[in-house]
Formats: sequence, C-alpha cells, structure tokens
Amino acid sequence: MANIDKKPIILLTDFGRQDSFSGVLKGVIASVSPESKVIDLSHEVNPQDILHGSFLLSTSCSYFPRGSVFCCIVDPGVGSSRKGICIQTQDYYFVGPDNGLLWKAASDNKINRIIHLANKAFFLDSVSSTFHGRDIFAPVAAHVSKGIEDISTLGKPLEKCVEYHFPRIDKTAFSMELTVIHIDWFGNVILNLKETKFRQFVQNKRYCLKINGIRIEKTVSSYSFAQEGELFLIGSSSAYMEIAVKNSSAAQRLAVKRMDKAMLVIVDP
Amino acid sequence: MANIDKKPIILLTDFGRQDSFSGVLKGVIASVSPESKVIDLSHEVNPQDILHGSFLLSTSCSYFPRGSVFCCIVDPGVGSSRKGICIQTQDYYFVGPDNGLLWKAASDNKINRIIHLANKAFFLDSVSSTFHGRDIFAPVAAHVSKGIEDISTLGKPLEKCVEYHFPRIDKTAFSMELTVIHIDWFGNVILNLKETKFRQFVQNKRYCLKINGIRIEKTVSSYSFAQEGELFLIGSSSAYMEIAVKNSSAAQRLAVKRMDKAMLVIVDP
Amino acid sequence: MANIDKKPIILLTDFGRQDSFSGVLKGVIASVSPESKVIDLSHEVNPQDILHGSFLLSTSCSYFPRGSVFCCIVDPGVGSSRKGICIQTQDYYFVGPDNGLLWKAASDNKINRIIHLANKAFFLDSVSSTFHGRDIFAPVAAHVSKGIEDISTLGKPLEKCVEYHFPRIDKTAFSMELTVIHIDWFGNVILNLKETKFRQFVQNKRYCLKINGIRIEKTVSSYSFAQEGELFLIGSSSAYMEIAVKNSSAAQRLAVKRMDKAMLVIVDP
Repeated sequence: MANIDKKPIILLTDFGRQDSFSGVLKGVIASVSPESKVIDLSHEVNPQDILHGSFLLSTSCSYFPRGSVFCCIVDPGVGSSRKGICIQTQDYYFVGPDNGLLWKAASDNKINRIIHLANKAFFLDSVSSTFHGRDIFAPVAAHVSKGIEDISTLGKPLEKCVEYHFPRIDKTAFSMELTVIHIDWFGNVILNLKETKFRQFVQNKRYCLKINGIRIEKTVSSYSFAQEGELFLIGSSSAYMEIAVKNSSAAQRLAVKRMDKAMLVIVDP
Repeated sequence: MANIDKKPIILLTDFGRQDSFSGVLKGVIASVSPESKVIDLSHEVNPQDILHGSFLLSTSCSYFPRGSVFCCIVDPGVGSSRKGICIQTQDYYFVGPDNGLLWKAASDNKINRIIHLANKAFFLDSVSSTFHGRDIFAPVAAHVSKGIEDISTLGKPLEKCVEYHFPRIDKTAFSMELTVIHIDWFGNVILNLKETKFRQFVQNKRYCLKINGIRIEKTVSSYSFAQEGELFLIGSSSAYMEIAVKNSSAAQRLAVKRMDKAMLVIVDP
Repeated sequence: MANIDKKPIILLTDFGRQDSFSGVLKGVIASVSPESKVIDLSHEVNPQDILHGSFLLSTSCSYFPRGSVFCCIVDPGVGSSRKGICIQTQDYYFVGPDNGLLWKAASDNKINRIIHLANKAFFLDSVSSTFHGRDIFAPVAAHVSKGIEDISTLGKPLEKCVEYHFPRIDKTAFSMELTVIHIDWFGNVILNLKETKFRQFVQNKRYCLKINGIRIEKTVSSYSFAQEGELFLIGSSSAYMEIAVKNSSAAQRLAVKRMDKAMLVIVDP
C-alpha cells in the first residue's frame, strides 16, 4: 500500500509549463520520496503575483486530504534575506517562501507552528541563489511527505510569518466598496466578498452593484438560470461573490481587471 | 500493489490550467480514493465546446486500460435540469454531464447501461450550483475507481442519454461534402471522414479536395514524404483524414476554422 | 511497494496541452505498465524545435532518480527513415527519435549503448506513420520502466546516433562570441556559456557583454541584489549564464530572440 503512507504533495507555482521547472520539482521529489503522490494545483500563477497565488491556494486547499503538503513557489525575493518556511496548520503543511503567499490559506486553517527552514540536511547538496523551489522547497516538502516525526527538525521556530491580506472592504451601513481579486479562465470576475457576508448585508433588500459605469441588480443561483448576454451576480464555487455572463466572459464585457473597484449599494434602504 | 487494484481515472475538462479547478478535482479524488492513478487527457477543451471535447475523448479512449473511468466536464448547463450520468460500456466508465459530451466515445465502445447520478451519498457533502465537477463528478469517479460492486447504486437507470453526432457527410456517388471537425496544436486540419471510408470512396481514382478555394490532390502516407510547403491529405493518428503541411500549419495556410466545409470530388469517374 | 519497483518515466514532447496527445501517451504507458510513475517534464517544446527540447532535457535530467526513463518526442521526421532509439547511459534511459534530441543529455551522462528500436514485440500492434510517440516510444518506455533485463532485446545495437550540439563559442584570448540558446517563461535570456567557463574567462577583470546594441557590465549572485529595471548577468539555475532584469523580462527589454549573438569582451585586458 505504497502511496497512502506518504502525504500527498500539492504544487503551486508561477513557473509556467513551457520550461522544465515544474518537472524538475517532481524529479527532486521523486529522488527524495519515490512513492509520494504529487498533484499540480497550478503552475500558471501570474509571474511573481502573490495575490493570484494566495487566492488559488486559499480557495482550494480544503478539498485536499488531511495531511497534504502544499509546496508553493511564487518567489520574487529568491536569494534575498526572505526566509523559507514550513507552516504546520490544523490539517496541512505549507512549504515555501515567507512572503505572504502561504499566509491566508494557512491562517484560515489555524496555524499551529512556523519553522524557518535552516537545516541544510533537508536541502539539495548544492543550493543555487535563483531556484530555491528546486533546491530547498521541493526536497523539504518531499521529506515532510515521507514522514518526519517533528517538523521542528527542519529549522528554527518562528513567532510569526509575513501576512498577506486580500484588499479590505470599505463599508458603511448601506454600501460596500469592493475590489476585483480574481478573474478566472472563463472570464468570471471574483470580488473580495464572501457569499455569506453578501447575504447578511443585502438580506431581502434591493441592491445595485456598480462597476466600470455598469449596474448589476440581479443574483442568480446557477449560470443556467440567467439570460444569454445578461450580467449577474452569483455565489462562486470559491465561496466569493462573482460577476458572470452565461457562456461568455464577464471580464471582457465589463472591461475590468484585477484590483478594479466596485460599489455595492442598498437601494431604498 | 496499491494502484493497480484501483481503476485509473482520466480527466477531460475545459477548466484550463491557470486556475486551480483541475487541481481541485484531484484533491477531491485523492480524498475519496487516495491510491487511484489520475491521468490528464486535456484540460484545454475550448470553453463549453462539446464538439472539441467529444473529438478528444472519442479518438483517445481506446488507448487507455480496460476499466478506466473517464471523468469529463464540459458543462455549460451546470446547475440546470441537465442530468449527471455514469455510462458503463464494454470496457470503460464515463462520468459527466448528460449533454452529449460522453456519447460518441461511449457508444463507439458499446453502451451497457446508463445511470442518472442521484445518490447523494457519493457526492461531496455540500453541492454548489456552479461546480459539479468538484462536487459530483470527481467524487463519483473516485468511488467507481475505488470499486463499487454495482454502479446502479449511483442512482437510477436511464433508457438513453443525450446524443451528440459529428456533422454528417453529404454524399453522392462522386462527391462528399465534408466538415472540418478539429484543428490540432500543429495546425493540422481534421475532417469528419474516417481513413477507411476515404479509401473505399476514392479507391484508385483521381480525386480533388476543394477547401476555401484551394485544391488538394495528393495523399501521402507520412509527413516526411511530402515536399516543404505542400498541402496534402493524410490518414491522421485519430483515424480521420487530415489536411497537413510538413513542418507548418495547414490551418493557417488554408485560413480555415472548425465547421468550415470541404468538397471531396472524384475526378473523371 | 508498487511504484518504486518500476523506473519512473519522464515525458518531454512538443505536443502541447490542448490536444489529447500527451494524455494518450499516458494511457498507453498505463496499459503496458500500470504501476509506473509518469512525470511531465514539459509538453510545450516549440513544435519540432530540437534546440529547445535538447536544452530542457540536458539541463533537467540530473535532478531525476537514477534509472529514470526519459521518453522524448520532438519528431519532425516521423514516418521517414530516421530511426527510433533507446540510449542507456550511466544513470538513465532515453527513448525517442534519433534526430539529436536525446544526444546532449545522454552524452553528458556517458553513453553506454544505443539500441535501434526494431523489435515490434514492444510496439503497439498497429503502428501509424504519424504518431510514433504513441505507437513505439511510449510502449517501449513502459517496457523499460517495467523492467526488461537487457535492453538489447529492443532491437539492434548501433555504434552511434545523431549528434546535436549547441552553437559553439567563437573565442579569442579576450573575447567570446556567444549565442542566445534559450529564453524562459520569465523572459530570462540564456547564453551558450556555462557559469564555470564564464568565471575562468573573466576572472577578476572588467568585462562587457554587448547584445543588440546594449552593454551589460554587471554580474549579480541573486535577482534580489539587482536594482529594479537594471540588466545584469547571473549564473542561472541551468548552469548557463543568463541575462536578467529583476521582476521583468530581459528578452523584451533587449528585443532579442533565440540564436541572436552576443559579444563578451574583456575590458582593458
């Protein structure tokens, strides 16, 4: 029963697919822990984009088995004094640079402890200054997957790590200034507002979402209930509210990009 | 001998690679059936394009081991009244939406039975209205992979499912009106005509294929036998006839797109 | 202990991701050797580009476990008289077309023997003239992974195979004419000069790299030590020298493409 004794390793990087970077991570992992299952979450995080990586990781990790080791590399500061860390949370391990990338996912899952990766016994023999994913994070993740009794052997405990928060909502009793935090492959536009919070705020009142000069006043519970060509709000599968158009790209229709603002207003409050 | 007791799961979706959708499917599968092998057929079906998905699936599945579970998600009707189904065929299982996507591959392999996925015991605890791939199809496929004795436990038997046919050939004794059904990564142009049917129709006679004002009168048995820059017909690896140019894109040369028409005519019959 | 008795299979192709070609390779492998681990090095080699494939393979393979089987398919000559080969080296197996693709990686690792794939018992029953990856190379790689005692059973021994060399450096005592051999996903520009050779040549002297009318006179040991917007030289993770800009694309800044030339000159020698 080979694989299931090993914790699965989940990869999230901005390495793209055209180079061999992501393949090389898997070579290193297979060298350290040949039986570990490796799953690609995505290798197409926008280069050096912490918001993108943080969104994908924090909205996905709860669907992975308990004990999964997330090895995440979006690392503009590679080779600088930024630390490499392993965070152990209630259910998971997160390995990567200490630049905020891991923080949202880890803190949502309750952080138990944070280790500064300082024990070179778990690194490749030769560590470059440009590719810590290969030389540090992949071998460390493989060792965690293989099973090390106490992750404190990886290095030194840290009190805290770098935090990265999604943009905050500027809120009054009857309005919320929201931000576009993600645009997905289908062109759906994700806002920094959880569906649960949207429901609490709007209740049964009429509302209007204004974005780039366009007003959206309708929520549907499924894409298929919308009219063709009509912009609407929907609770997305990520748990955040999303602006969508049936069978088309809302981002193109709205001509919006990430970090653009939107105003949600209660009408006749 | 972990893996081989579990049926391999093959994924085909239009989720792209830049989001975490395909990774999340694998997380769900690993949660239900940690030892199952998961293989990506493609995640780059054109968004909501049943023809594209149906072509990739039906021309590929015979290369997979007997017992493989194809989990396929191209699902413009997610959240509507369209059903989720599992089709058991002579050699395989197909899990996905009942919108025609699975039909060609399944019927080519002889459909034994069709089950409407209605037993929520095999779904995730919470089912969204926008991502049945994650909440229904992936966990069902994982349960089938893990081994359920009788797939009728997945729901209710159906007499039939939605059919999706490739465009039909309009044929006379000496001509065939054909349709471009696929253009591949190399720019090869695939027609809705099997090589076996082409040979029967053309026999030893001279023929001419007219497409977008261009005439092609040559068939070669291998790309390497063609001249540089020359358009030719070839029996493609998918078993359909293909228009190609050696080391270049026939689709660009012809300026054609899918669903464009071509006339195959016997010259001097 | 299923997987680890089987040698891992590493795939490198120019098949892209939008078709099912790479998935079909895995289906064939799973049919022959269900327990073999399969790792994607890349499927996005530029179509029919031997330099690109050779660069990715030769700079990556040392990170994979001993015994790995590299199944590599960039094959403009498929169906011609070009041979299919299996090269056994000190640590690895390389399976693919005999067109130079495998040569650099294999010879760097010391070639032990070369077998011309001629034994059809290891092919699929039916071999197309357009897709030897599926019909020959994948099943042969799977058989090697599964464990064949003596690879000479695959066919006939060859004295040598087609060589493919990176562009040579034109060198004087105080200058080197270099060539851009790779541009990666981040826009880093890789030159045909190993870092070790660069250090020997430059020593402690001042140097200047001229490329496309621009002069670069600075080397840094890590991206993070550079100024924003500044072009610099760095020893890349591939062991070759690289021109980079912090958090940006050097290739765009320099407006260079592969095979462009650069002059490295010692100033005041």
